[in-house]
Amino acid sequence: MRLIIDTDTAGDDAFSILLALKTPGVTLEAITICNGNVDFSQQTENALYTLEVAGYSDKVPVYQGCPLPLLRKEVDATEFFGVDGMSDAHFPKAKQRPESKHAVDAIIDLVMSNPGEIDILAQAPLTNIATAYAKEPRIVKALRHLWIMGGTDNSLGNTTPASEFNFYVDPEAAKMVINAGFRQTLSTWTLTMNSGILPQEALARIEAMNTPLSRFFMTVSQAPFKRTKVRYGSPLSTHPDSLTCACAIDESLILEAADCLVDVETGSELTRAYSSICVPLDEEQAKIDKLWPAGKPNCRVIKKADTDRFAEKLIAVLDT
Amino acid sequence: MRLIIDTDTAGDDAFSILLALKTPGVTLEAITICNGNVDFSQQTENALYTLEVAGYSDKVPVYQGCPLPLLRKEVDATEFFGVDGMSDAHFPKAKQRPESKHAVDAIIDLVMSNPGEIDILAQAPLTNIATAYAKEPRIVKALRHLWIMGGTDNSLGNTTPASEFNFYVDPEAAKMVINAGFRQTLSTWTLTMNSGILPQEALARIEAMNTPLSRFFMTVSQAPFKRTKVRYGSPLSTHPDSLTCACAIDESLILEAADCLVDVETGSELTRAYSSICVPLDEEQAKIDKLWPAGKPNCRVIKKADTDRFAEKLIAVLDT
Amino acid sequence: MRLIIDTDTAGDDAFSILLALKTPGVTLEAITICNGNVDFSQQTENALYTLEVAGYSDKVPVYQGCPLPLLRKEVDATEFFGVDGMSDAHFPKAKQRPESKHAVDAIIDLVMSNPGEIDILAQAPLTNIATAYAKEPRIVKALRHLWIMGGTDNSLGNTTPASEFNFYVDPEAAKMVINAGFRQTLSTWTLTMNSGILPQEALARIEAMNTPLSRFFMTVSQAPFKRTKVRYGSPLSTHPDSLTCACAIDESLILEAADCLVDVETGSELTRAYSSICVPLDEEQAKIDKLWPAGKPNCRVIKKADTDRFAEKLIAVLDT
Amino acid sequence: MRLIIDTDTAGDDAFSILLALKTPGVTLEAITICNGNVDFSQQTENALYTLEVAGYSDKVPVYQGCPLPLLRKEVDATEFFGVDGMSDAHFPKAKQRPESKHAVDAIIDLVMSNPGEIDILAQAPLTNIATAYAKEPRIVKALRHLWIMGGTDNSLGNTTPASEFNFYVDPEAAKMVINAGFRQTLSTWTLTMNSGILPQEALARIEAMNTPLSRFFMTVSQAPFKRTKVRYGSPLSTHPDSLTCACAIDESLILEAADCLVDVETGSELTRAYSSICVPLDEEQAKIDKLWPAGKPNCRVIKKADTDRFAEKLIAVLDT
Ligand SMILES: [Ca+2]
Ligand SMILES: [Ca+2]
Ligand SMILES: [Ca+2]
Ligand SMILES: [Ca+2]
Repeated sequence: MRLIIDTDTAGDDAFSILLALKTPGVTLEAITICNGNVDFSQQTENALYTLEVAGYSDKVPVYQGCPLPLLRKEVDATEFFGVDGMSDAHFPKAKQRPESKHAVDAIIDLVMSNPGEIDILAQAPLTNIATAYAKEPRIVKALRHLWIMGGTDNSLGNTTPASEFNFYVDPEAAKMVINAGFRQTLSTWTLTMNSGILPQEALARIEAMNTPLSRFFMTVSQAPFKRTKVRYGSPLSTHPDSLTCACAIDESLILEAADCLVDVETGSELTRAYSSICVPLDEEQAKIDKLWPAGKPNCRVIKKADTDRFAEKLIAVLDT
Repeated sequence: MRLIIDTDTAGDDAFSILLALKTPGVTLEAITICNGNVDFSQQTENALYTLEVAGYSDKVPVYQGCPLPLLRKEVDATEFFGVDGMSDAHFPKAKQRPESKHAVDAIIDLVMSNPGEIDILAQAPLTNIATAYAKEPRIVKALRHLWIMGGTDNSLGNTTPASEFNFYVDPEAAKMVINAGFRQTLSTWTLTMNSGILPQEALARIEAMNTPLSRFFMTVSQAPFKRTKVRYGSPLSTHPDSLTCACAIDESLILEAADCLVDVETGSELTRAYSSICVPLDEEQAKIDKLWPAGKPNCRVIKKADTDRFAEKLIAVLDT
Repeated sequence: MRLIIDTDTAGDDAFSILLALKTPGVTLEAITICNGNVDFSQQTENALYTLEVAGYSDKVPVYQGCPLPLLRKEVDATEFFGVDGMSDAHFPKAKQRPESKHAVDAIIDLVMSNPGEIDILAQAPLTNIATAYAKEPRIVKALRHLWIMGGTDNSLGNTTPASEFNFYVDPEAAKMVINAGFRQTLSTWTLTMNSGILPQEALARIEAMNTPLSRFFMTVSQAPFKRTKVRYGSPLSTHPDSLTCACAIDESLILEAADCLVDVETGSELTRAYSSICVPLDEEQAKIDKLWPAGKPNCRVIKKADTDRFAEKLIAVLDT
Repeated sequence: MRLIIDTDTAGDDAFSILLALKTPGVTLEAITICNGNVDFSQQTENALYTLEVAGYSDKVPVYQGCPLPLLRKEVDATEFFGVDGMSDAHFPKAKQRPESKHAVDAIIDLVMSNPGEIDILAQAPLTNIATAYAKEPRIVKALRHLWIMGGTDNSLGNTTPASEFNFYVDPEAAKMVINAGFRQTLSTWTLTMNSGILPQEALARIEAMNTPLSRFFMTVSQAPFKRTKVRYGSPLSTHPDSLTCACAIDESLILEAADCLVDVETGSELTRAYSSICVPLDEEQAKIDKLWPAGKPNCRVIKKADTDRFAEKLIAVLDT
């Protein structure tokens, strides 16, 4: 599998990169940085440091993309991840430097010159993917598969009641990408909450193993632990990005999925970035029920994933 | 308890009326008819027939209210309830006739002349309540409590992915009422799905008891059984309205509730009538998390109700 | 002509009432008060005082209507009209008191019991008319004609760039009424600006005539003179309401009008209450131009009125 | 003046290119093609043919940009300009071919490598400019000036009552660009209608001069003449793009302009792409009037241009 990871590297974004780097059979062709969690340059540094801590310095090019959402004012998640996105660990600056080529061009060039070969894991707001699509709509057909972490699947959001962070940051980009016609799979915040929380025992094992990567994991996780304790009553190790990566790498982790019609709200503040997700009616059904969405599905939505096998994969990676 | 039921009488609306009629200590002061499920006059007939079949002819006045949503085109639920709202049973016309007074005035007059005494169970689109409020905002303080069946609590809707039927029909009315300042409790479609589906054994008991009211129940339920079988795979006896009534009459049925900030979407088609429901942040929390809604709760939302005790109450009523 | 004036009495609202009172052949059947320009009770007092100053005490009943917009927060125009709506003249309290009947019911009862006989001049936000329509949609057919002052006709608004005050205050009410199906004529802020500004010489004549009503006119106009001087560079005597009244009373003042398709924006803040006004395409034209609105006109829109004859009428009234 | 023209070449777009080519002191550095009026490739051909007919083959590079609006479905103006955008003249294919470089990169590279040197005339939907900004926000400071043809200035639109074609096609792009912080001047459809219609005598002179370029002008104008005759009663030679070009090249043609606050509607269909334009209040004024927009102007808006001198310039160019 030839993979591009588009990321606003902070917290779990980094673990997702580790997973891709350390899984045999996966070639991480590029890391592309998108605006999102924390300061844009800091996100680049976080990606570069993650490569270094994993022993992959200079093995994967890092491209910087769009530093701002398309038309919304910037928001960030520093309250969740710390100002540096790494629980304020303030890691040393990595030796590898970002490429001068723009992430949008890196995506277009890789995808267009390798038709049917490249998967993208989009684990950030979708500004880069949307801008690549605006520039070169033919990536829709040339890309093998788009894996998106974003949205909610008819459950409470993590940013507003109606919405999840990645979609909230750039709803127009999300709407563009979801409706562009990609072969695509959506991994929602709802999935994170039902399948992407690391079990306590797994967490204990990680803490106990005391490898460089397990220490990296524990250090990076401290701020999210604190915030989830306040929000949910106990510290949660939530893995939206790395669970999506795990599913992309090994689809047998997907226990349940549905072909859905997905759309994104861009016209209202109360429901900004709400992801409408349903199994659409077919033509016959639409004659009876005139209000429910009808038509062809445009996105596979993961409904349930194998938490235990995901945890095993993550632990295995941190144990190297 | 002195109760007004505002209803678009079809299917479970009728069972809710039966519950109120037959519960000792509850005085049903008025039934007010609102646009919604089926043809407006037919809904009036359904309410009148329900009184008759329960032996309450001429004991509860029925007032006709607003025949249309405030500013949306009419929609109906005849595909779910049958054209007559009663699974096309085409019951004979009741002897009792509706009052000439308008439902909006009946509501205002009853509430204003009995301050602190009257509860309203709003189990239809909220056009009547909203119009009563527009005409006489002081009902907000004079009403003892408003029980609303409507909206979804961060789960899939029953009309569109984003919305429940009562709110969908008249979103502006829903937004008006939810934000008016009533002491109010919301019973959502989410609650119906987790607590308001009659267990199979309860249904079997009702079918077996063969009383006039159990036969009425089974007859009225046939169309919903057919439609839920298509939608959900097996016939479901869903009770949004009568569960709300049961909770209003006996609050001990409410197993879990939360004081929430609720608002309703009126500005977009994709998310038309979406009900935003969350526990709002307090002032301190709002300094850390700037995106999540903050402020004072405006509505109690029922999260879980006692399905078994609800079933017992319903069965007891049908056994009379 | 049998007329109801629905008014948020302040400034020009009062002159419009004078015009109706003093024009032979016009019977002012009722004045109904709607939320809008200034404090609701004060508006009632302003209407009552206007009757008194005109010598019509106890000759026209005044009914109080909806004190709040349907679902928007209250806004007012005290910065334009003074806190009392009468340039802070603080007139003595009139002897006549408002009726106990609600304006909404006064409108419905008058219209329904005199089908084809009554005209309404709506010179305030449309909350009362919308609520009357919600309660009794049959007023649409029973009303002879609805004259609405509101909206802009493709020109700069007076409240935001996109909108005029009456529509801005209660956009949902405006949208309800415009689309309800009334025989109706719209007099916009655009018309006020091109035909409803009193010429300087007319103003000089009014000032010079020194009658009780001319003194009333000059007193009431002081605050608007000050504000228009700031806004437009010189004091303007703008007459949205009384010009509409004059056109309703004598249609020969309408120099130019068009049958238009009108709609009102309720879904966005930037364009809140924008009135979309155009001559719609017919079926043939719509095959060529697929974006311009097509269909049947729903409203006559006055494009130009006879300013000089309007001024003469107003002066004649103030000279009595 | 070093100029880039971003164009959806059809009709007046071509005349604007001629004006830039033939005006001494203006260097047309690049033509960039954006989705809009007609088929994307055809627009490219139209630009290339325009260069050829003007004798500028291979002297100005033509770059193809974004073939689709950001997130809206495509619309076109073939009903106005003919299927080929040139009144179906079906001109022969030009010898010059478009560059392989993308328009977005051509814009970014030219602007960033010549800070403070380049002007852009954006006479198409703003997809290219918006995408360039999304990729490289620093063009905002590096560009000398952005000249935009688009929007309406509080008057009737040409695509819907609320909107002008360029903004209507891609409202999100328009909103992005208008709010990005460019030094910018807006030339609206309102300006076209009051200052950009060629006087009849000028048109007669062009027809009579019988030069290659005047024949080109007359041929290309036939379809718009037919459509404007249907729409406005007589054939109009409307020049939104070339008037903007003339103003950019020679600012003395601008007779009246205002520093305004401009924003674009993206959240509603009725008012899709409406351009809100006003002189904003300052801080002191905003204390009195709380509803009118306040803040700093973000755009100079041309209110009136010198039609006669524009006509002379156009005629001079066509006479070469
Ligand atoms: Ca991420
Ligand atoms: Ca109901
Ligand atoms: Ca008024
Ligand atoms: Ca153009």
